Amino acid sequence: MVMDRLKGVLAPIPTPFGEDGELALDRLAANLERWNDQPLDGYVVGGSNGEFVTLTPEERVRVVEAARKSVPRERLLIAGAGTESTRETIDLSKRMARVVADAVIVVTPSYYRSRMTASALEAHYRAVADACPVPLLLYSVPAHTALDLPADTAVRLSHYPNVLGIKDSGGDVTKIARMVRESAAGFRVLAGSAGFFLAALAVGAVGGVMALANLAPGKLNDCYRAYARGDLETARAIQLSLVEANTAVTARFGVAGLKAALEEMGYYGGPVRPPLMPLVPAERDELRGILQRAGLIS
Amino acid sequence: MVMDRLKGVLAPIPTPFGEDGELALDRLAANLERWNDQPLDGYVVGGSNGEFVTLTPEERVRVVEAARKSVPRERLLIAGAGTESTRETIDLSKRMARVVADAVIVVTPSYYRSRMTASALEAHYRAVADACPVPLLLYSVPAHTALDLPADTAVRLSHYPNVLGIKDSGGDVTKIARMVRESAAGFRVLAGSAGFFLAALAVGAVGGVMALANLAPGKLNDCYRAYARGDLETARAIQLSLVEANTAVTARFGVAGLKAALEEMGYYGGPVRPPLMPLVPAERDELRGILQRAGLIS
Amino acid sequence: MVMDRLKGVLAPIPTPFGEDGELALDRLAANLERWNDQPLDGYVVGGSNGEFVTLTPEERVRVVEAARKSVPRERLLIAGAGTESTRETIDLSKRMARVVADAVIVVTPSYYRSRMTASALEAHYRAVADACPVPLLLYSVPAHTALDLPADTAVRLSHYPNVLGIKDSGGDVTKIARMVRESAAGFRVLAGSAGFFLAALAVGAVGGVMALANLAPGKLNDCYRAYARGDLETARAIQLSLVEANTAVTARFGVAGLKAALEEMGYYGGPVRPPLMPLVPAERDELRGILQRAGLIS
Amino acid sequence: MVMDRLKGVLAPIPTPFGEDGELALDRLAANLERWNDQPLDGYVVGGSNGEFVTLTPEERVRVVEAARKSVPRERLLIAGAGTESTRETIDLSKRMARVVADAVIVVTPSYYRSRMTASALEAHYRAVADACPVPLLLYSVPAHTALDLPADTAVRLSHYPNVLGIKDSGGDVTKIARMVRESAAGFRVLAGSAGFFLAALAVGAVGGVMALANLAPGKLNDCYRAYARGDLETARAIQLSLVEANTAVTARFGVAGLKAALEEMGYYGGPVRPPLMPLVPAERDELRGILQRAGLIS
Repeated sequence: MVMDRLKGVLAPIPTPFGEDGELALDRLAANLERWNDQPLDGYVVGGSNGEFVTLTPEERVRVVEAARKSVPRERLLIAGAGTESTRETIDLSKRMARVVADAVIVVTPSYYRSRMTASALEAHYRAVADACPVPLLLYSVPAHTALDLPADTAVRLSHYPNVLGIKDSGGDVTKIARMVRESAAGFRVLAGSAGFFLAALAVGAVGGVMALANLAPGKLNDCYRAYARGDLETARAIQLSLVEANTAVTARFGVAGLKAALEEMGYYGGPVRPPLMPLVPAERDELRGILQRAGLIS
Repeated sequence: MVMDRLKGVLAPIPTPFGEDGELALDRLAANLERWNDQPLDGYVVGGSNGEFVTLTPEERVRVVEAARKSVPRERLLIAGAGTESTRETIDLSKRMARVVADAVIVVTPSYYRSRMTASALEAHYRAVADACPVPLLLYSVPAHTALDLPADTAVRLSHYPNVLGIKDSGGDVTKIARMVRESAAGFRVLAGSAGFFLAALAVGAVGGVMALANLAPGKLNDCYRAYARGDLETARAIQLSLVEANTAVTARFGVAGLKAALEEMGYYGGPVRPPLMPLVPAERDELRGILQRAGLIS
Repeated sequence: MVMDRLKGVLAPIPTPFGEDGELALDRLAANLERWNDQPLDGYVVGGSNGEFVTLTPEERVRVVEAARKSVPRERLLIAGAGTESTRETIDLSKRMARVVADAVIVVTPSYYRSRMTASALEAHYRAVADACPVPLLLYSVPAHTALDLPADTAVRLSHYPNVLGIKDSGGDVTKIARMVRESAAGFRVLAGSAGFFLAALAVGAVGGVMALANLAPGKLNDCYRAYARGDLETARAIQLSLVEANTAVTARFGVAGLKAALEEMGYYGGPVRPPLMPLVPAERDELRGILQRAGLIS
Repeated sequence: MVMDRLKGVLAPIPTPFGEDGELALDRLAANLERWNDQPLDGYVVGGSNGEFVTLTPEERVRVVEAARKSVPRERLLIAGAGTESTRETIDLSKRMARVVADAVIVVTPSYYRSRMTASALEAHYRAVADACPVPLLLYSVPAHTALDLPADTAVRLSHYPNVLGIKDSGGDVTKIARMVRESAAGFRVLAGSAGFFLAALAVGAVGGVMALANLAPGKLNDCYRAYARGDLETARAIQLSLVEANTAVTARFGVAGLKAALEEMGYYGGPVRPPLMPLVPAERDELRGILQRAGLIS
């Protein structure tokens, strides 16, 4: 069962592009080969860190298809399938299932935000859950959508068949606690950023899907296991050591920062697609210092 | 020259769907036939009111192509071509030019909003302006994107070749005044909503692209002409009479409200695409009252 | 009747402090003497530009009392009397009436903003209007309070005895138009910033209470009269020429900018009270350039 | 040393008023007598839950003076001393020290928020810390001030003499983690709301100043001690059981909710001062249900 395996530390991997801006699927394979040696519990492919908004639907499917070839079946592969349209999301979810994604993750539609009422969002997710051959993970990421999936809506959806859990990137731990407490048994709440990973675990989250897991899978896994065995001091020390690096590859420098950091660590990073812009040299230097202070590069 | 004709009252038309959710291009033709009898200076096709975010790129082109067949050459047809990706926007802009759009309108990318710095946005628009065979209209609509194209950026872009003007829907008249004053000669500033049409004209906007122009083209044209001839009392009376109806088909009920209002007036409205939801009966009743008070239906 | 005289251009004057931070009422008198020669329709004393939040209640009354001595009875003197407490606001309003303020202006309480519902705000203003011996002007200034007095609430209050009008500094012209249209006959809507003065007039505002009126009373009066006689071109030219200077003494540099600008023009400016900080030299230089471009200094 | 004792569970107590709206200091004494029997590590008097914004400076001092008579010296008494003015804050801090407050807590000034830069806030707190005879606790509460004291500023201030720590009510655990990691040794970070108490502890906060501590001191102390001894399961169970009740007496119903809840539990609650409004009967019923579900009343 997917549900049982969805926990721990998952990496929302970036999508590699060549210098021409085209998909570089060989680079994807090479990166995954390295990540497969790391203590990761799964991958999200084609999410926010995968620049899904600048991928065509065809590219989104191709990336997941390619990733699946490198990701062993015992590791979860969750495919980003969110769009602004319910029917496109359904269509894309089905295609993701066909290329053997274990689950799909669907971000809140947000363009018509003043009309994205609780009932509109609930109807959207119910329609997708009904049609999708694999389980559905809700995804709330106000930094990108300027819209927070309400806790009440998540709780109601937790009782709906085929709704697996939620990745919440908003950082509101009180909301995470509420969802843990009030949602259906088995509903999985995951932290959407390493900045509040331990805090989320403390109130009952089962893991995290975190950009930083691309860079620090071992440390985050150590944190997770230390927490699990009750060694809070170790867990806290790791958590605190990672806050600055996490901010660098999320709020501060975004995907461009994540790709640059991967390059610093010997992975393939490569360009971001415009309108995203690469780091300027001064930002790159600063990033290097941050990674050093976090013990991720020497 | 397109630039000379871009002024007055333009309607950002909705995209008609059949009950099956598919494009209903015959309905589009019928609506346009009626609008062509109205004193409108042009159309925006496939913009926010055209539900572009739930159209595929192919559908976006087909709608513009179909509209062009009904829109006489002396009326402007501006095609929505914005996407989250610079290269997709360029590609779509070229296709829009091929189906004989007079200009394209490109909304700010917004998903990676913390990285959509002034320089990223400027680079995006410059790249599109360079590649696009027809003039480019900037489009800032914070209600949808939670991002305001900075006045400084618009001013800088106003000096760039092929940048025609801006549709600003943010409602900040001080910003509109700044852009009018500081932008290059010939740069056209247009109000993005009828709520502040007259106010924008008063500080030098040349017209408006306004959802309400679908419903009240005659009144808005009267307002525009009254203002132009210095008859402010008449202009103000019309403006004030339309504020409530304008709010109903924008901030309050959105595209579903606009389509319902069109139906009340004998146009084809039809369904919105989910996750947008139709008005509930009580909302429909309220909308009817608002249209009556505005003198748009009896 | 105060109501009939409340229109045109009013200056919300700053409160002069000596180098020791104490009230410098002689400086106030000297400034007012100069302003009295300018075409101003009235003054607001002890408002946001008067740093009321760092004045004690006693100081607030003393400043109004002192100002009244310099302000001829045919010019309106409106006293800031807002506090976070209904009963303190009532008490202060009464004291302001005793020192012969013509009206009081009361900002929305905002500290408990999540509980400042429409009904709480309405009850607050009704209680003040009931108790206050002079007319009451509502005051909405989201830049300071992070709270917008809802248009509906203003409209309801416009029908209440002793409620004179509103100073709205939010810059939402659509809201201003709604209040003009829906409020009781005689309710006066005033622009709260020169950035949207002409736009507000165009939709029916009767004037403005504007920081910039301290610096450019003649130009703003010219704008107002040009608008009144239907000479929109002149009105617009003046409005556009003032946008940059207005931003400098409001959103950008605040009260410290206003005081520095007064000094540049030969008025007394003097220090702001901490935690407000004076302009640094580079800001002062920039301000000087802005005032020159606006034709306010040579 | 105050610093050593500042940890655990502190209650920010409400200020009791009689039906006439005047201070009811006998009620305060009675409430404190009961709280003194509870496992509380201290009190904040005259903070946000103490309605300080509707108290005069004299009343603020009187409440603290009265509270001190009931609070044994071995329990911390921290006095709210924040105002919009640096010099008033200094003055009030000195008065609080004279009535034997152990420390003062000073909220960020916020009215001139666009000018409340990091350097303005830092200068404000340094001036207060310099002048204040007792230690100073920073206080960031964006729900009330619409301003978040930046982590960097808190970190810089942590190195300044007499700056004891921070109460952070913003709920951003990533920020709390950053402050814990980067601030000077001995700087105390406290959660400002029970909604994220355990999460804050998990990243190194030393305790909390929480409205809910007025109602559930025993449960919050149990949570704190369970966490301290590594019994996370117990800590989490308590935390989760309190989330709904916490929201009720903070974001949802505010101080009026807190006072009503106290009445349900046999304490004195009494009226709030307008413009705050009491709960309507339906809200009161709902609150009662919430307290029952949290096991706080039967």
